[in-house]
Amino acid sequence: MERTLCAELSSAGASSPCTVFGWVAAVRRLGAVTFVVLRDRSGTCQVVLESGTPPPTEAVVRIAGVTAAEPRAPGGVELRGTSVEVVAAPAVPLPFALHRPEIPAALETILEHRGASLRHPGERAAFAVQAALTRGFRRHLDGLGFTETHTPKLVGGATEGGAEVFAVDYFGHPAFLAQSPQLYKQVLVGAGFERVYEVGSVYRAEPHATARHLSEYVSLDAETELFAGGGAGALIALEQGLLSAMFDEVRAACGAGLERLGVPPLPDPSRAAVVTLAEALRVTGRPTLDPEGERLLCARLGEMVFVTAWPAAERPFYALEAESAPGLTESFDLILRGLEVTTGGRREHRYERLTAAMQRRGVPAAGFEDYLGAFAHGMPPHGGFAIGLERLTARLLGLPNVRRASLFPRDRHRLRP
Amino acid sequence: MERTLCAELSSAGASSPCTVFGWVAAVRRLGAVTFVVLRDRSGTCQVVLESGTPPPTEAVVRIAGVTAAEPRAPGGVELRGTSVEVVAAPAVPLPFALHRPEIPAALETILEHRGASLRHPGERAAFAVQAALTRGFRRHLDGLGFTETHTPKLVGGATEGGAEVFAVDYFGHPAFLAQSPQLYKQVLVGAGFERVYEVGSVYRAEPHATARHLSEYVSLDAETELFAGGGAGALIALEQGLLSAMFDEVRAACGAGLERLGVPPLPDPSRAAVVTLAEALRVTGRPTLDPEGERLLCARLGEMVFVTAWPAAERPFYALEAESAPGLTESFDLILRGLEVTTGGRREHRYERLTAAMQRRGVPAAGFEDYLGAFAHGMPPHGGFAIGLERLTARLLGLPNVRRASLFPRDRHRLRP
Repeated sequence: MERTLCAELSSAGASSPCTVFGWVAAVRRLGAVTFVVLRDRSGTCQVVLESGTPPPTEAVVRIAGVTAAEPRAPGGVELRGTSVEVVAAPAVPLPFALHRPEIPAALETILEHRGASLRHPGERAAFAVQAALTRGFRRHLDGLGFTETHTPKLVGGATEGGAEVFAVDYFGHPAFLAQSPQLYKQVLVGAGFERVYEVGSVYRAEPHATARHLSEYVSLDAETELFAGGGAGALIALEQGLLSAMFDEVRAACGAGLERLGVPPLPDPSRAAVVTLAEALRVTGRPTLDPEGERLLCARLGEMVFVTAWPAAERPFYALEAESAPGLTESFDLILRGLEVTTGGRREHRYERLTAAMQRRGVPAAGFEDYLGAFAHGMPPHGGFAIGLERLTARLLGLPNVRRASLFPRDRHRLRP
Repeated sequence: MERTLCAELSSAGASSPCTVFGWVAAVRRLGAVTFVVLRDRSGTCQVVLESGTPPPTEAVVRIAGVTAAEPRAPGGVELRGTSVEVVAAPAVPLPFALHRPEIPAALETILEHRGASLRHPGERAAFAVQAALTRGFRRHLDGLGFTETHTPKLVGGATEGGAEVFAVDYFGHPAFLAQSPQLYKQVLVGAGFERVYEVGSVYRAEPHATARHLSEYVSLDAETELFAGGGAGALIALEQGLLSAMFDEVRAACGAGLERLGVPPLPDPSRAAVVTLAEALRVTGRPTLDPEGERLLCARLGEMVFVTAWPAAERPFYALEAESAPGLTESFDLILRGLEVTTGGRREHRYERLTAAMQRRGVPAAGFEDYLGAFAHGMPPHGGFAIGLERLTARLLGLPNVRRASLFPRDRHRLRP
């Protein structure tokens, strides 16, 4: 029993016997004839039934029939059904209708019933885009000699500091969920991998619920040696090339679908603005680059703005201070359409300067022994960045809330489904 | 300042000015001349210094020079160094020597000093293989219409049962680390993705420390609709094709390196044996397929053995019972060179039968509401499997302990580095 996908029906030509499987998206009776819109992972197709009981909406079905040319059907071909088998009928109705361009429900309801809301092709599209973004991320970095790594999320010591960590009972000992793979990816560069990346979950016990925060999210982390020199500028150039490759992958894999959803064209990373934080504050007229400042910055300078030269006090202890401007670091943020989606920078690789910076800032060495050990053995110059996958997806698709770009989002108030 | 990788030196030809960066693997004086073996991410090269102080072993260096033909050097070309810059010298000596084929230290010492032990090319090779395995996994499944997904590791309810879960304090509420993405991947198949995969961390609070268990490991999960029918046999065929593609990727990316390390050829998944559990027990003469049984099974039937027809009592509640043999499930394990590396099977997709199976086994519905909701809305027939990445890597490379295939392993007694 060969399966034909909805999207393949038109290339089957007319008068071909075909079997389709999927979900009943809509049923419409016109006299003695019933039109069924069938939905599968590839899209939808039109099925005409001339007899029998039509299947219930949202049932999982198998329909066998013969193709026929029909200019009004998607792809110009419809299936004249000859047999319908209901594989699984809904025992309870879905909490909302799925046949409109948007699900007619509040975000909370959409997230509460995720198994149902993801049946909507528009809702699922974000995750096809997400898969293409990660594929592009890996492919581009693989081509540049990076190695994919997996570092632990269960950590024993301090990570990046701050109180926003989740505590875990580890066989009776205290442990924490990693806030980022930062320290591990640096150690791996120094261990001889030179260039590493990771696509993995990270955890922030954010005490507030906003449209831009998740307790658990996917971080696209990259870290590279900078043997040949370079600071924030070299890393920004790396990220620009990387994002261009990722967006190319999205266009290739999901271009038609995005157009159908009315998603505006993806930005061109090579045309991103690059400004210092001082310039960004002057342009926005704000004392800090807070969420409102991020919005203003993109309204004034364009969809993508890299902000450089952050004061050391506003960056972690491992940020490298610029030779030419002490007190300012070789670090950057990327603001995409009004939202910070990347933080990165060159790191301090010299053991003595790193430990001095920790002392100056009152960061205790306890918990950092393994990290500092790598520097004591000698580290190459290096730097990197992290891209928040859900934030990036949400900004590209124009989703106002980052939760919409997470299959099963976790936040202050949500631990299920 | 263009960088030349060690592996590129031979293709630079003779009399070319080149700059190499990396780690000093070995220093050997012969009269007035010093030979330096330089190591970078691509391999090693030979540098000859005729003057100056030689750099210390394991220092990070930049060496500029001119290439010269030298039959005794790797690749037939050496670098006659004209300037050496020590980028970072070790402030403390490494805990072991790295110039031998094996690190002369116990496993515990190797893991304790991971930043140092990973400098050894043999130690790093496992992770190049691991990266190739995951790349092949994704590429093959992408080609079959699967979507990559990311499901939460922070979960509120029961997962697969058992006491081996880590507890998390989630804003004052109890939460757990997911033991597998099992329930989520099934829900996603039914939500219309049809075919999903995930490469992500999973957590088992294993109370015992063995050579085959980790508290945190990477699971390669795949789940697919089985619209066109099929049970364990169809899923085994899917995994055979998948593993073949993964092994092809390893051979293409790491073949030469594996040969140098003396790794035996990878097995051929298409030639795997497939036997029922009853047959496996008969062949091994053991009452259960315990670790010793797994070893005996492969000793008698070959490197790869799929074991099918497990009794329902030995599988989770969601395992589908075979139509032809009630009490036995459409499930399987894959035993690779004496170690279980995959568990999989077709799942019960019918709501009434699933809830009945839960009741029969005393599995409470509490905590499974979201999972059961997906079935109440109608699920297609489906199944899948999970491959333990570290176990697979260890078996392919002949590593006796699975920890050796984890960058920073976590076990009963180890929460760092």
